[in-house]
Amino acid sequence: MLTIDVNCDMGESFGAYTVGVDKEIITFISSANIACGMHAGDPFVMNKTVRLAKQFDIAIGAHPGFPDLAGFGRRMMEFSSKEIYQIVIYQLGSLSAFCKIHEVKLNHVKPHGALYNLAARDRLIASTIAQAVYQFDPNLVLIGLANSELIKAGKEVGLRVASEVFADRTYQSDGSLTPRTETNAIIENVDEAIQQVKRIVLENNVEATDGSLIKIDADTVCIHGDGSYALTFAKALHQMLKNIGVSIAHL
Amino acid sequence: MLTIDVNCDMGESFGAYTVGVDKEIITFISSANIACGMHAGDPFVMNKTVRLAKQFDIAIGAHPGFPDLAGFGRRMMEFSSKEIYQIVIYQLGSLSAFCKIHEVKLNHVKPHGALYNLAARDRLIASTIAQAVYQFDPNLVLIGLANSELIKAGKEVGLRVASEVFADRTYQSDGSLTPRTETNAIIENVDEAIQQVKRIVLENNVEATDGSLIKIDADTVCIHGDGSYALTFAKALHQMLKNIGVSIAHL
Amino acid sequence: MLTIDVNCDMGESFGAYTVGVDKEIITFISSANIACGMHAGDPFVMNKTVRLAKQFDIAIGAHPGFPDLAGFGRRMMEFSSKEIYQIVIYQLGSLSAFCKIHEVKLNHVKPHGALYNLAARDRLIASTIAQAVYQFDPNLVLIGLANSELIKAGKEVGLRVASEVFADRTYQSDGSLTPRTETNAIIENVDEAIQQVKRIVLENNVEATDGSLIKIDADTVCIHGDGSYALTFAKALHQMLKNIGVSIAHL
Amino acid sequence: MLTIDVNCDMGESFGAYTVGVDKEIITFISSANIACGMHAGDPFVMNKTVRLAKQFDIAIGAHPGFPDLAGFGRRMMEFSSKEIYQIVIYQLGSLSAFCKIHEVKLNHVKPHGALYNLAARDRLIASTIAQAVYQFDPNLVLIGLANSELIKAGKEVGLRVASEVFADRTYQSDGSLTPRTETNAIIENVDEAIQQVKRIVLENNVEATDGSLIKIDADTVCIHGDGSYALTFAKALHQMLKNIGVSIAHL
Repeated sequence: MLTIDVNCDMGESFGAYTVGVDKEIITFISSANIACGMHAGDPFVMNKTVRLAKQFDIAIGAHPGFPDLAGFGRRMMEFSSKEIYQIVIYQLGSLSAFCKIHEVKLNHVKPHGALYNLAARDRLIASTIAQAVYQFDPNLVLIGLANSELIKAGKEVGLRVASEVFADRTYQSDGSLTPRTETNAIIENVDEAIQQVKRIVLENNVEATDGSLIKIDADTVCIHGDGSYALTFAKALHQMLKNIGVSIAHL
Repeated sequence: MLTIDVNCDMGESFGAYTVGVDKEIITFISSANIACGMHAGDPFVMNKTVRLAKQFDIAIGAHPGFPDLAGFGRRMMEFSSKEIYQIVIYQLGSLSAFCKIHEVKLNHVKPHGALYNLAARDRLIASTIAQAVYQFDPNLVLIGLANSELIKAGKEVGLRVASEVFADRTYQSDGSLTPRTETNAIIENVDEAIQQVKRIVLENNVEATDGSLIKIDADTVCIHGDGSYALTFAKALHQMLKNIGVSIAHL
Repeated sequence: MLTIDVNCDMGESFGAYTVGVDKEIITFISSANIACGMHAGDPFVMNKTVRLAKQFDIAIGAHPGFPDLAGFGRRMMEFSSKEIYQIVIYQLGSLSAFCKIHEVKLNHVKPHGALYNLAARDRLIASTIAQAVYQFDPNLVLIGLANSELIKAGKEVGLRVASEVFADRTYQSDGSLTPRTETNAIIENVDEAIQQVKRIVLENNVEATDGSLIKIDADTVCIHGDGSYALTFAKALHQMLKNIGVSIAHL
Repeated sequence: MLTIDVNCDMGESFGAYTVGVDKEIITFISSANIACGMHAGDPFVMNKTVRLAKQFDIAIGAHPGFPDLAGFGRRMMEFSSKEIYQIVIYQLGSLSAFCKIHEVKLNHVKPHGALYNLAARDRLIASTIAQAVYQFDPNLVLIGLANSELIKAGKEVGLRVASEVFADRTYQSDGSLTPRTETNAIIENVDEAIQQVKRIVLENNVEATDGSLIKIDADTVCIHGDGSYALTFAKALHQMLKNIGVSIAHL
């Protein structure tokens, strides 16, 4: 039977600030990417989110980002590759400590925000992250944008990798995501987004913004955990996958 | 042969801010307590300090503190015991990640600053910290103030504990340190400080500020890594221990 | 005609984190207490909130708190009175800069969270805050808990003060708010909360938790800007005040 | 008589972290650029530094930087021009509050680190900063790199500007500073650095790294307040200016 992973960013609350509908969305996913306290999250949120994921038997991943709470890890910051190595190690360590006390496995790693985008296009950074993950634990799965430098770097270092696709983002003809600054970056219509995933899963391709077809492998689909459509979309995706006989299973 | 551990707080620099003379002082100690990025330290400093300790074959310990860079973890903050548990777990995790990539063992844990003082007098917090340490790794040694609640809690939970004494602090008749707000809290004269350690090591007692003698066990002596006298004192302590035939060895 | 001020904490969002329904609630209040970037808020939120308040002709106040984003300024931290003086000055300065560029007056100051509570009971801290406010601008109105040390200190230093009452908090027989740790601290029923305000406004007293009556002056009523009942309560308060012929006007 | 301003960055300590020799260097300068709590400094340091500058009758300037304590404001971060406007306003406000309570004038503004470099080359950011400064207080002097976009933007908006030169940095043929990543960026020899200033002051030109002569106006010379050579250099500069009959006076 065909299976696919559905992943969602979680544990992005901080102190008195709450984002996301983690408790609702968790029933529709197979993998949780948990913020590690640098771009979002704090020790209390991390603990709570690891416990939640364990309770629902969801695979737990680290979601390391730039140390930039004010910018939520979404803006570029100048870091050397050596610094990015340490930043990733630090975050893998802190999240894995919560896995340890909850006696649950750390399963995967997916970089967050600006670090994810940087790792998709910059080979040096991609290799740096892949090496950090491998040296921390060679059994971790590395999630990256399908066709990206991070996927290539992960394979090269010997990690199991997972190609990620987005339901609600459009693709450019080179396989990269259309930047959010473009007007056609986001697919706001739920049906269209669901159709894009369906096509990727069944036909392994996606129509780029210029009309061309791009070959794309999908090991995991990213859904967003905040915004008013998060739950609606999660349910619709769940139903569509069921209809086409694809089961949701973690990496 | 009689042995004693000599420990020093290390890795307390942050970004462009440098404190301590870690590279100089490390040749005179057997254990390094490394800041974990919450009251001091950052991923780059943590990495560098773990590497330094490994290079000099010094035992590495985590030095978790309150998440308060602006206050250097020295001022009290209201936290529940549950919160302190998570704060400690987070910091053990992040430091242990650097131990992992440098393939060196995390040997001990010593709470920092206001958290150290709180754990010395508050049994609930002491037990909380002891449990966090035990659940993270039952082989860790827990360092606490000699005769403190933390030492008792550590024993109770099944950890190996190490009673810490201070060379340059005076003691009150109940065994607690004279608070820094008192004028006679600090022993500024190096010879007096050295004599206090000598007496503790050889006779297992210390003269309190009221003249009474307190029984005190010393598994480890704390020396300070900053201030102009740090190196002078470290050398003098080293010499005195050599003279009386006590060798310096980590826990 | 009888008037009363209705104040609400605003601008407590931070970066990607949004709290409160500032845009909705602003039509029901006369004074906005704007976070100054230490316990909540950031330069972008401060700018937006000052502009919003100006647009609705709402009096603008500074809402200084402890520098503790992770704790939202709600937990106690050890600060000397001198430090609290500087913390308040810093925050008055940063908010007043946004008032300056929007050409609108800074009208009042109301301490936030743990600092508010500390200033209510501790005379030294109350005097320190009153002096900081007076030295920054003697024309500012100082808002404090009715009957508190802060109100006394404000009067003594020569500031115009405003006694604040809470609709949804119960009072103890000594005039202090019942701590949130007690089960009966919060009045969750909207009607009861409205009735408490009505009684305070019309009869200048409130029934304490032990049944005794406390004399209470009300210059301003605090309403909360977050939580699901915020808007419901704001509308109900607005209607009640209209019904009894009390108009809402800023200090 | 010819005069020139000598400025130095000050108040860059934070909490328990101390940098710079502010108390020693202040006797050799005429203008202090004081950190405003975002890239460095905190309310206590700001207060102390304003008081120190007042005591020595040194002109006080704001030294706004990126909100990045971990990076000391030295690394690029992605901000829109609108965001930079708010960041600057916030910092002007907080520092001016300390000027207010010490009854001393805020005299000038000099952007810090990565923001300074960005404002030197990017006209939009330069204009944004110039407008923020002008709207906050049109009497402020804006310090920028000689020949930079910031100087042009300041003039255009109607501010008094001051062209800054560096003693210990080499210049490229287009008038920009040689980036620190180049090996010849820094002039480490004190005599050479002093000679460069002498030439700029007397002949209004500097020899670029390719041997060409660049016309350069110098209203103010920047000296660094940290590093072991800070005091040595400050004294040597002081002596040289005295020898050639140029007096040090603030803008």
